[in-house]
Amino acid sequence: MPTPSTITLPAPADFHVHVRQGAMSELVTPHVAQGGMRTAYVMPNLVPPLTRTDDVLAYQRTLEALAPDVEWLMTLYLHPEVTPDEIRKAAKAGVRGVKSYPRGVTTNSASGIEDYGVYYPVFKAMEEEGMVLNLHGEVPSDDEKNISVLNAEKHFLGHLRQLAADFPALRIVLEHATTAEAVDCVLSLGPNVACTITAHHLWLTIDTVAPQPHHFCKPLAKEPRDRRALQAAVSSGSPKFFLGSDSAPHPTASKMPSVTGGELHACAAGCYTSPYLLPLVATLLEGFGALDRLQGFVSDHGRKFYNIPAAEKAEVTLRRPATPFRVPATLAGFGTEVVPFWAGRELAWEIV
Amino acid sequence: MPTPSTITLPAPADFHVHVRQGAMSELVTPHVAQGGMRTAYVMPNLVPPLTRTDDVLAYQRTLEALAPDVEWLMTLYLHPEVTPDEIRKAAKAGVRGVKSYPRGVTTNSASGIEDYGVYYPVFKAMEEEGMVLNLHGEVPSDDEKNISVLNAEKHFLGHLRQLAADFPALRIVLEHATTAEAVDCVLSLGPNVACTITAHHLWLTIDTVAPQPHHFCKPLAKEPRDRRALQAAVSSGSPKFFLGSDSAPHPTASKMPSVTGGELHACAAGCYTSPYLLPLVATLLEGFGALDRLQGFVSDHGRKFYNIPAAEKAEVTLRRPATPFRVPATLAGFGTEVVPFWAGRELAWEIV
Repeated sequence: MPTPSTITLPAPADFHVHVRQGAMSELVTPHVAQGGMRTAYVMPNLVPPLTRTDDVLAYQRTLEALAPDVEWLMTLYLHPEVTPDEIRKAAKAGVRGVKSYPRGVTTNSASGIEDYGVYYPVFKAMEEEGMVLNLHGEVPSDDEKNISVLNAEKHFLGHLRQLAADFPALRIVLEHATTAEAVDCVLSLGPNVACTITAHHLWLTIDTVAPQPHHFCKPLAKEPRDRRALQAAVSSGSPKFFLGSDSAPHPTASKMPSVTGGELHACAAGCYTSPYLLPLVATLLEGFGALDRLQGFVSDHGRKFYNIPAAEKAEVTLRRPATPFRVPATLAGFGTEVVPFWAGRELAWEIV
Repeated sequence: MPTPSTITLPAPADFHVHVRQGAMSELVTPHVAQGGMRTAYVMPNLVPPLTRTDDVLAYQRTLEALAPDVEWLMTLYLHPEVTPDEIRKAAKAGVRGVKSYPRGVTTNSASGIEDYGVYYPVFKAMEEEGMVLNLHGEVPSDDEKNISVLNAEKHFLGHLRQLAADFPALRIVLEHATTAEAVDCVLSLGPNVACTITAHHLWLTIDTVAPQPHHFCKPLAKEPRDRRALQAAVSSGSPKFFLGSDSAPHPTASKMPSVTGGELHACAAGCYTSPYLLPLVATLLEGFGALDRLQGFVSDHGRKFYNIPAAEKAEVTLRRPATPFRVPATLAGFGTEVVPFWAGRELAWEIV
């Protein structure tokens, strides 16, 4: 099949994105549309986390003011403050889902959960209200049990299976899968379980993560076999898999191994893909022979799972650039700065 | 057993250290003695690599001028230029060993080897001359074969077993082991095979490496079970295991994820432990209950394997510091600067 020179997609959507607060939010929120997305499903791990409907709605208004051309879909942060009553209130207000962070595993997850059992009444209410449960699928590291960032996702899959069995009518998304085992697990579960895949995990492995803080993210990219499984999930065209970029900007300084006050500081976790997301995803899918799955991955599958129809006249068209576009070294503004994923590399597609 | 308040050790030795060239060498070479080492076994991965006896001897004279109070033991870099004749010349000149780097796996290894078979005449000559073969025990990453920095050492162990079987009188050191499988393999082989263990691999796991370029080294620190196996190897008191710090300084800038010329640059691999090596090792061994194995690990086992007796009156004494010493954030001089391992952390022991 000859490669097309243009591709038109119905209203691409990013079903997992971080657009932050304050100056960083002012810089990055407009990048979502720039990257070709018409709909964005927004993560609630602000400081403090968004545990109340009113705060979620205030955040939504802020994002709408910063980027009125994007449909902002909002989430609550699973936390003891999120009661079944709060779920019903949130659902009525149009909040779409609840994000669960196991405690301490990623950026701003110190308020994350330790035990799912106590949240069963909340999940029941979500099931009744048609809200989606979004799972950061890692358990905390534990030296005694030999649980590390390498196998934290595999150890989580038991929780996913249990939740899917206990709440068969609750829609559940395993977010940003990174392992062959996670892909297999999602495929083995019913139609209420889906899975987002990031752009960066379709390209990185541990070999390119270990020496490069700008590739450090949670969950960590793993072995070549795992990347192959993620690519195969996309190539299969299964509607269970769709784009959730987990685009997660951090100020450049937070990615540096600084030694301040005499202490070594760890680098922040996250890859920033929003500004070039659709051209990047097209370039990556073409790279492993799955360009024909682009529309399903970025437009159809996620919208169908979430029941978020594409707006009319919201198509986005990609074309071959006359000269390949090189991702810049930094994006700056509002007194902050972030290094985008693939800085210095060329994209094979551009948005018309 | 009550913890002693002082410990006197016969001539501690570091059987794997990088002391570099130029300004960096001027800065770090004196740190070897400062860290409590009387003998240092020096790696040959300079630019260009040390493949000729004359160059090794010139390097040794440079090191002796920079730090005359250390016994500098020298190595050749395994390379097509290293012939059996060169081995005999090197042995006569007092060169102790030959270091093998699989191609491309670590700092300055672009000249590394791809196939051991072609070096069998060299190994035969080394066996006859009593030279030691030092192995960087990783195979190159290979996406197709699912070989990554995570399992590169495990995949190397077949080479180690083969070499040990084919050259039963050749002393072989598996350098800087990082996995439980490597420890088991070394234990299963004859007395001609030994293994160095670094200070940093007794403390790091992948969880603390992934977010921190100053913890990024090759081989990568791996899972908690692997660290436990390394600690157990030290705790066992087996003479097969001894200190080889792999202390590997890089200028601070090389540890930064720089974006120059529009391209992202990976961080350099290596942890720098020389300046505080003996206090650090004592602190670490005490941390996992193996302080009684300190003398074997830092003085006796390596010297016995290499047949390098401790000089008289070369004892080093450690004591509890009145106030714990905090590792500084940086060490600078000669126009360069390096961040030491454990920057900002306290050491439980100091050299008298």
